[in-house]
Amino acid sequence: MALPKIVVLGAGYGGLMTTVGLQKELNHQEAEVTLVNLNPYHYVTTKLHEPAAGTLDPDYARVEIAGLLKQEKVRFVQDEVTRVDPENKEIHLAGREPLKYDYLVFGLGSAPETFGIKGLLENAFFIRNLNGVRQIREHIEYMFSQYNNSEEKRDELLTIVVGGAGFTGIEFVGELVDRIPELCRQFDIPREKVRLVNVEAAPTVLPGFDEELVKYAMQYLEEHGVEFRISTPIEECTPNGVVLKGGEKIDSATVVWTGGVRGNPLLEEAGIETARGRVKVDEYLRAPGHEDFFVVGDSSLIFNDEGRPFPPTAQMATQQGQHLSSNLVAQLRGGSMKPFKFESKGTLASLGRGSAIGVAFGKKMTGSTASIMKRLNDWRWFYMIGGLSLMFKKAKF
Amino acid sequence: MALPKIVVLGAGYGGLMTTVGLQKELNHQEAEVTLVNLNPYHYVTTKLHEPAAGTLDPDYARVEIAGLLKQEKVRFVQDEVTRVDPENKEIHLAGREPLKYDYLVFGLGSAPETFGIKGLLENAFFIRNLNGVRQIREHIEYMFSQYNNSEEKRDELLTIVVGGAGFTGIEFVGELVDRIPELCRQFDIPREKVRLVNVEAAPTVLPGFDEELVKYAMQYLEEHGVEFRISTPIEECTPNGVVLKGGEKIDSATVVWTGGVRGNPLLEEAGIETARGRVKVDEYLRAPGHEDFFVVGDSSLIFNDEGRPFPPTAQMATQQGQHLSSNLVAQLRGGSMKPFKFESKGTLASLGRGSAIGVAFGKKMTGSTASIMKRLNDWRWFYMIGGLSLMFKKAKF
Repeated sequence: MALPKIVVLGAGYGGLMTTVGLQKELNHQEAEVTLVNLNPYHYVTTKLHEPAAGTLDPDYARVEIAGLLKQEKVRFVQDEVTRVDPENKEIHLAGREPLKYDYLVFGLGSAPETFGIKGLLENAFFIRNLNGVRQIREHIEYMFSQYNNSEEKRDELLTIVVGGAGFTGIEFVGELVDRIPELCRQFDIPREKVRLVNVEAAPTVLPGFDEELVKYAMQYLEEHGVEFRISTPIEECTPNGVVLKGGEKIDSATVVWTGGVRGNPLLEEAGIETARGRVKVDEYLRAPGHEDFFVVGDSSLIFNDEGRPFPPTAQMATQQGQHLSSNLVAQLRGGSMKPFKFESKGTLASLGRGSAIGVAFGKKMTGSTASIMKRLNDWRWFYMIGGLSLMFKKAKF
Repeated sequence: MALPKIVVLGAGYGGLMTTVGLQKELNHQEAEVTLVNLNPYHYVTTKLHEPAAGTLDPDYARVEIAGLLKQEKVRFVQDEVTRVDPENKEIHLAGREPLKYDYLVFGLGSAPETFGIKGLLENAFFIRNLNGVRQIREHIEYMFSQYNNSEEKRDELLTIVVGGAGFTGIEFVGELVDRIPELCRQFDIPREKVRLVNVEAAPTVLPGFDEELVKYAMQYLEEHGVEFRISTPIEECTPNGVVLKGGEKIDSATVVWTGGVRGNPLLEEAGIETARGRVKVDEYLRAPGHEDFFVVGDSSLIFNDEGRPFPPTAQMATQQGQHLSSNLVAQLRGGSMKPFKFESKGTLASLGRGSAIGVAFGKKMTGSTASIMKRLNDWRWFYMIGGLSLMFKKAKF
């Protein structure tokens, strides 16, 4: 008799947590588990703003998948998913024959949400993956390195526009605040020539955060030279910068968009019902009308008790993965699945190396306390996927 | 009575050595010495190929001038020299009033010699100064960082063409041989995708070097993946690469030209007689027909006993500077100047971190012996300009 086939797509928080959970709970020969991922490594998405700014070695945010899996329990396939076919229960890959599945866990992450802003996809950078953030870091450095090499000083080389003042936007700006003085020293550039502008269409930065914390963050960043443009949508992004609503033009060689994500387009292409690309999953994290098609992470849509969607976060994806692996094991063993319920453990946003804001254990925190709590959070993730040895390796980094 | 004014232009090997010598030998109120330099720092030109490749922190090759001078002995002016006027004994500067001189030491270095190759000045990089080499390093990294970010893999991003296989060309290629595996690891690029092509018009690499040593160098570099195109002039450099004589086209995002230097154009503009921009100085290092106009370093032209010009080197400039400072002091004190004679102490070319070739103390050397000798040479220079403290600071770097 053939073993039931579980295929997990994506080694992000959701997919990896599901896989690690299955690996732990399943006995020998209970199921055939396959994890498919584009890269041979997992990356810690919540840390990407740091290598993007150049304040952290990208290798800190990277974990080789092979080191996390037991070969006898999970098969790892490094390939690109080109199509999901729920009708035939098949996953099409760029580099090999399709994979068959009995249970599918879709955790392939998000795509940037551009809100139709002209020129954004073509001209802006996105904090999305390791390759991308390494390029952002190199791009910024390259612009700075050019400044002193021409007679006419092109100030736009030193102007960085960050679109979006949500979580990623603010955290990225916080890192740049630390990074810019280093770059100025490295390339002999006067600090006052550098501009860092954070543009946000909403009426506040960090929407959803406590007002006092928002104020703390804005004040900290403004004191460190950040210019905010709040309630100001970007109308267009060009190769030379951005045009804001109201007509202000900012000449800039570096525009980084952090203004939001939508679900992975493969879901719509598979005929799954979505809203902004995200799938409103049922209490068992299943796509509507499917018994064997689970969605975790950024492409899943879950509502809170007030009927408002939870923002897609690492915390959400991690809890989904943990929960789903137990449910899958229960199902394989003829038991019944338990409904998923998100439990917020708080939220922390970093403001560079030494500061952060947020709520943890039900308490508001700022400054270095919040910053240390944030670091502990990273380590917790490494512990969850790779145990103590990975945690210590990263903590010593 | 006004003190005699000595103005030294340029804080390269020649100018700095002259200044440091004057500072040491002159008594209080014997002369007014002014050193003019574009940057507040001296850079070690013979090390520039390393930060250009990214194998050395550019700060190693940089020494703040203020730390080398005694304010009561030498006045330092940070400015750009725009014109030399020997008729009125004036130096015109970009940012302030002209400086008067009684004795001028011209040590403003070289300009690239392009041999009329089309598109070279516009599209190639030059290993010339600290700003420039920092940009070369960043450019190479930026190209590598882009490779994995597009669907179609653009191999030209990973192709580096080095024009010229003289001293600088070979040393730069040697550093790249060390650097490329690091870049491949850092940006997840297969080593075999990277091409490093060294193009030389002359029938050999390192013209003037011992044949056995040339063979050693070429073999070492070829074993490390360098492709040579010897006896092959570059016909044209475009934004997309180079076209070689014979028609071969090499698509490349990075072309670095090391094929030679000519004298500083300010000399020709001042009406001084030059050959390829260089001034055939007399035995006292004076420009022809001038009693008070000395030229040291890359813009000076000196012939050996067989009537062939010495190549412009740091060693030559250093000896000129040492000799000239003594001559100037003698002249100020009513004594007579001594004729300059270059004494070669040997030549060493590095082949990356762990290897080198060359001749020192009359002996041929290769490998790590030559490499260590080369390092001692660096330290000797730091000792000469900044004493033991600078030498130890750099040695510990």
